[in-house]
Amino acid sequence: MGEEVKVFGAWGSPFSSKVELALRLKGVLYDYIEEDLNNKSSLLLQYNPVYKKVPVLLHNGKSITESIIILEYIEETWKAYPILPQDPNDKAMARFWVNFIDGKCSSAIRKVAFSPEEEREKAVEEACECLKTVESALNGKKFFGGDTIGMGLELLSSEKFPNLFKWTDDFVSCSIVTELLPPRDKLVAHIKAHLSK
Amino acid sequence: MGEEVKVFGAWGSPFSSKVELALRLKGVLYDYIEEDLNNKSSLLLQYNPVYKKVPVLLHNGKSITESIIILEYIEETWKAYPILPQDPNDKAMARFWVNFIDGKCSSAIRKVAFSPEEEREKAVEEACECLKTVESALNGKKFFGGDTIGMGLELLSSEKFPNLFKWTDDFVSCSIVTELLPPRDKLVAHIKAHLSK
Repeated sequence: MGEEVKVFGAWGSPFSSKVELALRLKGVLYDYIEEDLNNKSSLLLQYNPVYKKVPVLLHNGKSITESIIILEYIEETWKAYPILPQDPNDKAMARFWVNFIDGKCSSAIRKVAFSPEEEREKAVEEACECLKTVESALNGKKFFGGDTIGMGLELLSSEKFPNLFKWTDDFVSCSIVTELLPPRDKLVAHIKAHLSK
Repeated sequence: MGEEVKVFGAWGSPFSSKVELALRLKGVLYDYIEEDLNNKSSLLLQYNPVYKKVPVLLHNGKSITESIIILEYIEETWKAYPILPQDPNDKAMARFWVNFIDGKCSSAIRKVAFSPEEEREKAVEEACECLKTVESALNGKKFFGGDTIGMGLELLSSEKFPNLFKWTDDFVSCSIVTELLPPRDKLVAHIKAHLSK
């Protein structure tokens, strides 16, 4: 009997994309349900009553929420093609950078977009500090796959952040990522429309 | 040859206590190094250059930072006496509540202490909403051990949050927790001194 694997996601959401990417990397077949974030389905609210957000993974009737937690669940449930290193210390390092990028770094970048003009310079400075930290962590190392920092941010320049730029470039060049990521022009238009609301 | 296990912590920090508690629950012997947060040691800055915070776990010369990530590392490295459920779905639920309490809930509670008086009522309301969510999740269930929400917050009343109150009470009554937690009167004095700075 086949498994039931469903992803409730939203177009352009890096959090949904991460979950889809992990499933694809492991070769797990799933159904994708697109949510309208302005009119969330009763199923989404039922499966994620605390945050009411995408993504939600539904596996054989049980729901898992929060992209980082879903990734851990996917890793433990489908063991082939690991998405985290096997050594506990390397795994801790990988989790550290996922948390840093998803938490401090993402919120600093979001601030750049949402700050009033007079605060923007400071916000850009803070975001650059975060990216510099990631940049230096990448120095001479290969980053682990599975995160979606490579969304084509204006902040990213190859002069300022050569390691990060190269990683992003390598990451989005993988066919499995290319298939999943929305076309850049459409994504930029989508983000601009969202920001102007 | 014995293992080197060291915890860099700070008195009264629930994040340090969590790490110590996990090690004690698993029977792992460790050395504890108290950090002066007003004058951090060069070792702390070396081991946690990104956040410069306690706790840090040092295991055979390698450092792990961020309490949640340290707990995952401890769980994977010393497998006896698991601190997380074994079933992937139950484990995802446990991680969900750890994230919710450490993230949204903690920051709402911190806001109550740090808000200016005119914003305090709203902050209390938000914190109560968070606690209500945890309260209803505990309904008829036993919570998993390893989190330190039970620090004697004024917000916690047995009438408003009976499940949470009972869990807290049960949690702090365990001898392994009692041994570790600072005496309530000293902790309250410490927090008050911190708030009045």
